[in-house]
Formats: sequence, structure tokens, C-alpha cells
Amino acid sequence: MKVNGVHHRTIRVAGDGWAVEVVDQTLLPHRFELARLESVDDARRAISTMQVRGAPLIGITAAYGVCLGVRVDPTDRGLEATVGKLLAARPTAVNLRWALDEMRRLVLSVPLGERVEAAYARASELCEGDVECCRRIGEHGLGLIRAAIASGRGRVNVLTHCNAGWLATVDWGTALAPVYRAHEEGVPVHVWVDETRPRNQGAALTAFELGAHGVPHTLVVDNAGGHLMQHGLVDLCLVGTDRTTARGDVANKVGTYLKALAARDNEVPFYVAAPSSSVDWTIRDGLAEIPIEERGSEEVTRVVGRTDDGALAEVAIAPAGTPAANFAFDVTRAELVTALITERGVCPASAKGLASLFPEHAG
Amino acid sequence: MKVNGVHHRTIRVAGDGWAVEVVDQTLLPHRFELARLESVDDARRAISTMQVRGAPLIGITAAYGVCLGVRVDPTDRGLEATVGKLLAARPTAVNLRWALDEMRRLVLSVPLGERVEAAYARASELCEGDVECCRRIGEHGLGLIRAAIASGRGRVNVLTHCNAGWLATVDWGTALAPVYRAHEEGVPVHVWVDETRPRNQGAALTAFELGAHGVPHTLVVDNAGGHLMQHGLVDLCLVGTDRTTARGDVANKVGTYLKALAARDNEVPFYVAAPSSSVDWTIRDGLAEIPIEERGSEEVTRVVGRTDDGALAEVAIAPAGTPAANFAFDVTRAELVTALITERGVCPASAKGLASLFPEHAG
Repeated sequence: MKVNGVHHRTIRVAGDGWAVEVVDQTLLPHRFELARLESVDDARRAISTMQVRGAPLIGITAAYGVCLGVRVDPTDRGLEATVGKLLAARPTAVNLRWALDEMRRLVLSVPLGERVEAAYARASELCEGDVECCRRIGEHGLGLIRAAIASGRGRVNVLTHCNAGWLATVDWGTALAPVYRAHEEGVPVHVWVDETRPRNQGAALTAFELGAHGVPHTLVVDNAGGHLMQHGLVDLCLVGTDRTTARGDVANKVGTYLKALAARDNEVPFYVAAPSSSVDWTIRDGLAEIPIEERGSEEVTRVVGRTDDGALAEVAIAPAGTPAANFAFDVTRAELVTALITERGVCPASAKGLASLFPEHAG
Repeated sequence: MKVNGVHHRTIRVAGDGWAVEVVDQTLLPHRFELARLESVDDARRAISTMQVRGAPLIGITAAYGVCLGVRVDPTDRGLEATVGKLLAARPTAVNLRWALDEMRRLVLSVPLGERVEAAYARASELCEGDVECCRRIGEHGLGLIRAAIASGRGRVNVLTHCNAGWLATVDWGTALAPVYRAHEEGVPVHVWVDETRPRNQGAALTAFELGAHGVPHTLVVDNAGGHLMQHGLVDLCLVGTDRTTARGDVANKVGTYLKALAARDNEVPFYVAAPSSSVDWTIRDGLAEIPIEERGSEEVTRVVGRTDDGALAEVAIAPAGTPAANFAFDVTRAELVTALITERGVCPASAKGLASLFPEHAG
């Protein structure tokens, strides 16, 4: 998507043909800078310090991390060391393991002298595959936005939570892909952006990427969505998912469940953009089976921002020593989800719905 | 309630017998300091800059502001000027007008030479009346907490939103009065404190007052309550109300409605502490009839806190120029409220329930 009129992706191979450049998301929205990754350690650090985040983008970064490793040591032993390092960067991210498995299989199947070239080629394929998956989600979701405008008042108001935009992927995003497509098509779309405490990915990343691309949006606190829906100010909700069960429960950023409840109470459609890579076909009951990550309490008690002189600063908002709990995700039951938007189309959030689009996983 | 072992109220007459001292809430939780009010202008400023906030406390501060004005000019004309100034400080607060009407009526009924003494006496009565009202709410709510522990696991987990504690009143608070009573009685009570964006009254005020009094509590972001309730970590919700309709709808800090939805979805009792002074007997439908205040967008895009060197600083959390909307309240329909806790007892959130306790307003 665009920043200051220039098209960007979150990750690319540098002009020298081997180093990897990523948008440094720890500096957003205050500075838009690329970080240059030249080694496996650079890639590992980019993932662990969240210079890159979002399950799809973490996977792609790890894939290029393998390339950087194979470049230095293409042996089987070198490859295993590289994969091990990257896997430890954020062990809970589903796509990280998936992408590393893909890369390992490919590299091991190729003679030593061809491994570097093959690795870069496969990483590039994964990268393009992610873009294509998101583009298709955008296409399928566009129909839902068009349907909303047909029954609406000339502007479609979408509410989203957290960041499931292009910054969470290589390009397009998942939940925001339909919004970008609608904007491209001239459909008047406006996004209510939940700020998404505690890490403020809505205020920092979603507001940034929509603003930089020119999509109308308004930032609200996470408390506001219910009021907006009560007063008819939301036509549809569109969120991402970190893990989708085989029957359509979704684990997403904490607070998603509250918005789904408000959507049901006010008869607002609640859509989840779910690439098939987010589906864990081995589980059904999200509440019982998806472990919810607990993160550090300082994310709740301290806030990072930009002072008026442009410096980044961190301030405490609670009394010193206040105990705080920080649950990173919550689970929204399938019955609260109007439909899933996948790369193969839109389906009911149910085992039957998912099986209709992905018959190879049914049974 | 106590701060560092010493009992405090939010407002009192100073040792000199005429000036007024208030806890300066703009400095909390970072500093606990009293502000000294010596004139009508001081009182007006304390209300408008939110050194004092919370409808009950605003009313009491205005009452003492009248005393400070009558001291300088006890004439009818002087009184009207004083009342006019104070009323303009925050015209939307219900208790402000009520307290000023009370004071004006009293002062006008007394000869010129006795007005100062009579005004201080009446302000003191209003002050004690507020304490007694909150104490009774605490007593009635204590029964609900005891009932929860009887059916529970040895600790009662209360979730509250915003600050309806002693800092919003003279002492005790409304929603937190039952918590303080339970704590006094040795009932093991623990409070989940919603941080309450955008002004963070939960993180700044509720966490401060519970911590200073020694009540166990844990701060969470506003997004977390649904997850907590899904996992059985909340036994009851207890919130305040800024305006209650005759049929029991409540307008309270934005986000209250989302917690009420989660409470219903998880069969958690949702109680609202509603002093009769919060009831607007002239309206029934809260969604249609209660206007929702919109505040400045900078409350959403900027956060105030304490830097590591102890200074107070303000940081921007969104891209410069991001549009933001700031709805301060939302409405929770009576059907989502398990019961109202008033100074006369606990009643269903319904016209019939309220009329049973307040027959003088029925009909």
C-alpha cells in the first residue's frame, strides 16, 4: 500500500540482491524507516523485538532469515542452526513454524551449490503467495462492503480492532484488504479504528497505514464501539484472527469478543478475515483449546508516545507498583461471527462452512 | 477513606474555619496534594479544570463555593453572581445545579448578617448527607458481595469501570462503597480495575484509591473484561451512573455497555450503584433521551503520565493529525442491569423497582 504516494511492502530484498529490508514497526507511527537485515541474528531480532509483527509477516521474515543463513553456511548443520534460532524468536506464532518448515524442506532437497538461489526463490514465492492470499480476501470482502452500501446511506462505516492491515502482512492485509479494494473502486468507505490497548496497534499502525494510503478513518478508544453501534454508526465490523478453529471460533486481539457482542446486540454484521493459514484444523472449541498468551504488565501501566519536541518517551499512567494483568487475546465463539472471509471465498463460521471451501481438511 | 494510613475526605473546611481544601485530582496518581480554595473563582476553576470531578463531589464543591462568595458579598445580587459563575463551571453536571439551588434557597431565606454562618452550615449538611448516602449504598451492596462469596471460591472478584469511588464523592464512593465495607468486614474482595480510556480514571484514580486504602486489585485494559468473564474470573460487576432514567436505563462512562453485554453473555451479575440524586425522573428511554457528551479528540490521541524522572509529560500515541472521536458516555439498557443499589436499598432496574423504593416519585 502507499505511504506518501509511494507503494511499499513491509518486506523486500534490498537493491544489492541479498540483504532484506523491513519497515521498522517499532518506530511507527512516529517515524517511517526501513531496517536492513544482513544476518540470521538480524532477522531473529527483528521478529523478537517486533520490528515486524503479524503472523503472516513473521513467517515471511523468517523465510528470508533462512536465506541469510544459507548464504553464510549452506550445509545441513548450518541450516538446522539457522532454523532453530529463528524458531525461538517468537515460538507461539503459527506462521513462523509453517514458513520455517517450508524453507527447510526446500533447502534440504537441493544440492549444496544451488541452495542460496533456491532459498531466495522459495522465500520470494512465499512472499508473493501471501500477497495473493490477501488480495483474494480483499476481493471476496469487497462484495460484502458493496452489499452494505447498497442498503446504507452513501458511506460504509467499517469498525476494525487492532491491526490486520498491510503492516501485518506483506501487502494488502487481511481485514483491511477489502477496505483498500473498496477505496480503489471508489466506494466511499470510512473506518472506525479501535486504538487497541494495551499496545495501541490501532492508534499506531492502523491509523498510520489508512492515513498514509488516504483512506478516511476516525480513531476511537476501545470503549466506544458499543455506543457507535447503538447509534447506527457502524455498518459492519471487520477483524483479523490469530487462530481459527475448525468450527469457526476465532482467537484475536483482546477486546474483539466485546465488539462481537455489541454487533450481535445491534444486528451489525461481524466478519472475520481468516486466511486458511490461520485455521488450526486440529481443534474445535476455541475457549477450551486455545491458550491465551499473558504478556508483561508494563504494557498496561506504561505508554509509549511522541513528545511535542518529537522524541519518543514512555510514561507511567498508574500508581507505581500497581498490579496489572495483560491477556493478549480473547476468543469469539463462531455463533457471534456472521461469516469468515477466506482466500477461497466467504463462508459461514462453522465446521460445515469451512469444509465447503477447504474440503481437503474435512473429516 | 485512607491514604498512607490517614483518613481523608476529598473536601473539607481548612483549619482557619473558612477556606476550603480539596484533593487535587489532576495530580493523581502521581502526587497526593490538597488545593486550597479561597474564592468563588478558585472553586469555579477547581470544577472546570477537574481538580474535583464526579457528580456528587462537584455539587459539594459548588456548595462551598457559595460560602466563599457569600463571605465576600452576602447581598442577593452578590449571591446571584456567585451562583452564575459556579453554574457555568461545568453546566452538564446534574448535581451542580441541584446543590446551587439548595444553597441559593437557604441563603435567601436568612437575614444578611447570618448568611455566612448559615451557608457554611448548609454546605456541611450537604457534605454529610453525601457521605451518609454513600455509606448506605455500601451497606446495601455489602449484602450482594456476601451473597457472591457464599456461592463462590473464597475470594470475591469485582469488576469496575471508571472511578465511582471516594474520589468521585466526599467519602466511600458509590460503586466502591460496598467494596470498602466488605474489606472492612474482612470479606476477601479483589477488584479488577478497568483503566477506562481515554482519561484513564481507572488507572489513575481507582487504582490509586484502592491501593492507598489497601484493597487488593489488578489493573486491566478495557478490552480484557470479556475474557475475564468468559473464564469465570469475575463474580460481579459494580459500576456507577451519571444519569439513571425512571425505568432504570443508565448512562455511565463509555464502555460500561460492553461490560454489561459480557456480563449477560456469561451470567455474571451486573449491579449499578445509583444514588437517587442520579435519577432523572422525567425521562424513561436512556438511548433516545440522554444526550451523550462529546469531548476533545486530544484526550484520545494524547496520554498524560509520569516519566521515569518523576515529571509529568504528555505523549502523542497516534500519527499527527489523526481524526479522533471522543464519546464520553454510553447507555446501558435496564434489561442488562441485574439490580440498582440505592441509598434506600437494592431494587430491580425498572420503573416498578424504583417506584417501590421512591414512591414519592412514582406516577
